Amino acid sequence: MKIVVDAMGGDHAPEAIVEGAVLAAQENNTEIILTGLSDNLKAELDKHDSDRKLPIEIVHADEVVEMHDSPGKVLRSKRKSSMKIGLDLIKEDKAAAFVSAGNTGAVLAYSTVILRPAKGVDRPAIAIQLPTLKGTSILLDAGANVDCKSNQLFEFGIMGHVFAEYILEKENPSVGLLSIGEEDGKGNEIVKETFQMLKKSHINFIGNVEGKEVYRGHADVIVCDGFMGNVALKISESLAEMIGANLKLMFQSNWISKLGYLLLKPQLVDFKKKVDHSETGGALLLGLNGVVIIAHGSSSSKAIKNAISRARELSEKKIIDHIKEDIELNLSGVENSKDTIWKQIKNIAFGNEQIADQGDSSHSDKKSESNET
Amino acid sequence: MKIVVDAMGGDHAPEAIVEGAVLAAQENNTEIILTGLSDNLKAELDKHDSDRKLPIEIVHADEVVEMHDSPGKVLRSKRKSSMKIGLDLIKEDKAAAFVSAGNTGAVLAYSTVILRPAKGVDRPAIAIQLPTLKGTSILLDAGANVDCKSNQLFEFGIMGHVFAEYILEKENPSVGLLSIGEEDGKGNEIVKETFQMLKKSHINFIGNVEGKEVYRGHADVIVCDGFMGNVALKISESLAEMIGANLKLMFQSNWISKLGYLLLKPQLVDFKKKVDHSETGGALLLGLNGVVIIAHGSSSSKAIKNAISRARELSEKKIIDHIKEDIELNLSGVENSKDTIWKQIKNIAFGNEQIADQGDSSHSDKKSESNET
Repeated sequence: MKIVVDAMGGDHAPEAIVEGAVLAAQENNTEIILTGLSDNLKAELDKHDSDRKLPIEIVHADEVVEMHDSPGKVLRSKRKSSMKIGLDLIKEDKAAAFVSAGNTGAVLAYSTVILRPAKGVDRPAIAIQLPTLKGTSILLDAGANVDCKSNQLFEFGIMGHVFAEYILEKENPSVGLLSIGEEDGKGNEIVKETFQMLKKSHINFIGNVEGKEVYRGHADVIVCDGFMGNVALKISESLAEMIGANLKLMFQSNWISKLGYLLLKPQLVDFKKKVDHSETGGALLLGLNGVVIIAHGSSSSKAIKNAISRARELSEKKIIDHIKEDIELNLSGVENSKDTIWKQIKNIAFGNEQIADQGDSSHSDKKSESNET
Repeated sequence: MKIVVDAMGGDHAPEAIVEGAVLAAQENNTEIILTGLSDNLKAELDKHDSDRKLPIEIVHADEVVEMHDSPGKVLRSKRKSSMKIGLDLIKEDKAAAFVSAGNTGAVLAYSTVILRPAKGVDRPAIAIQLPTLKGTSILLDAGANVDCKSNQLFEFGIMGHVFAEYILEKENPSVGLLSIGEEDGKGNEIVKETFQMLKKSHINFIGNVEGKEVYRGHADVIVCDGFMGNVALKISESLAEMIGANLKLMFQSNWISKLGYLLLKPQLVDFKKKVDHSETGGALLLGLNGVVIIAHGSSSSKAIKNAISRARELSEKKIIDHIKEDIELNLSGVENSKDTIWKQIKNIAFGNEQIADQGDSSHSDKKSESNET
């Protein structure tokens, strides 16, 4: 089982990426393929493993996707990039999982185009692990899909459930829908539709979850659209930053408080570790025919090592097969072809009841189908 | 200038409400009308002002809106409630502003029905003050409107600008649109439409603001729909709660850290005060023909006192007149009647360009008008 790592993606690429691969190979003997400018990668690898004893292979790629490149431009013009060549290796079954700390939009676009959504899945979602008062929860979608339809949110619920069950090893994980009140009728139109669909699924759906519950860890999986998810996570980062800055001012305000800080330092380091994204190995792109991990752009070598370990774990535990099974289970009894999935979900969730279509033009084919129901 | 206070609303009503009114009357000699069950209110007032020297009047109301009452039920059946009778006093010009710590949905529904939106405003919005690294920002809408159209978000921007300018006294306050990226094209469909409208307004619109910028205080005013705003604020509360709980564990983990805590305590108290909602006087319902303050349900007497002071300030500084003027300024040159506002805003922002209607059935009249453009 080989893991492909895009060695050119990330703020500290290729140095931190190569070092992270070296750490992963040393720790678990993970076989790794690094894609990128081979001369640079060889030079980096020489620093850590000059006699090439580690199971690390280099596959040359001429081009580099930059952080500011638009996904559209990347798809059209950077066909020899470390990202594209890495994902091709997954598609050709030469490796089991892909890790990149590069341009998130480009990873998302390339992964979706090259690997395609898994059978039964309409759109992939970015899943993030959140530290909570009870341990860890999953939030998805954290930014892959800005305008979501209810069938997509429904699928995110199923995929999050699979992740919590098989990877976080939670028994009968609870799935909640992020909304503005706990009652059934609370939320915007899409949330209300999704609520009814999840209620009739086979998973442990606990209903709406309010923002105030998120970090309490009441729900193991929190479902929302990518617009909400992205803003929610970034607001959290922003608040943590503000609190951190205030604590720092507090600690430095006089010699008494400086002493207080020194006394608390060990606990502060522990807490920082608990909420540090580099510990969790990055975000997961769930729902494709392949395991894809999007590490934070600022990933250190340790973060890359953890992302590689997580990628290996996801492959070993066959997350994609489980997602396909669970999506199918929740659509059981209905012909399961991707083209008619929206119609099927509606039939399952609502009988033949007609519900409002949300007018996403990319789904006009499905819309016209549903009108014939 | 009298301020009406719903003395029966809130977790600690009527005790904390009456005490808060007493504090406000003592501090600034503010004239106050308390609405509610008069026997109970007299008994409470006796505790603080037995010889009735303070300018506090009681107006009897037979019914009490409970925290769990649905707004629909309240509108239909609780016509003698302290909330309804209080708002009627504003409508009849017997008082200048209304404060309630009661059921938010009911305050919102009653205020909108009784006071009506100000000329030029489609929907009122809940505005919240956020502590930031630079001081204070306003976020709106914090939960009044779950599904928003772009003209509504546009109006929220204007109203937030007025609040920041006249009440927070910021010179040329900056207004940002909450989204997932800073570039013009980032966001969901409604956000993209609103971006174009705000760009052509007279206010200092600084474009999209990402979640990570919120607590940095880069924008004085942050505009979003009520679904996003509510979730974002409650997630912030949730994260602060988690960090607080972890700090507490940290402080108590051994005698060294307990000592550290004692040394830091004065600074921690200061910080808590800075982010404490009871200091800011609650949320403001902007855009109605009357000043309405929604205090936190758990308001203490101090929070009620601050809410009353804030209500008085908003009335004295004529916030409603300024909102009307600024809405008109941004719609200048066009016939300004509420019935055709959607059409007007579209004309101003887009020329005669046809844009997608988001299908809110309550706006079908405006929709058909706009189709005639």
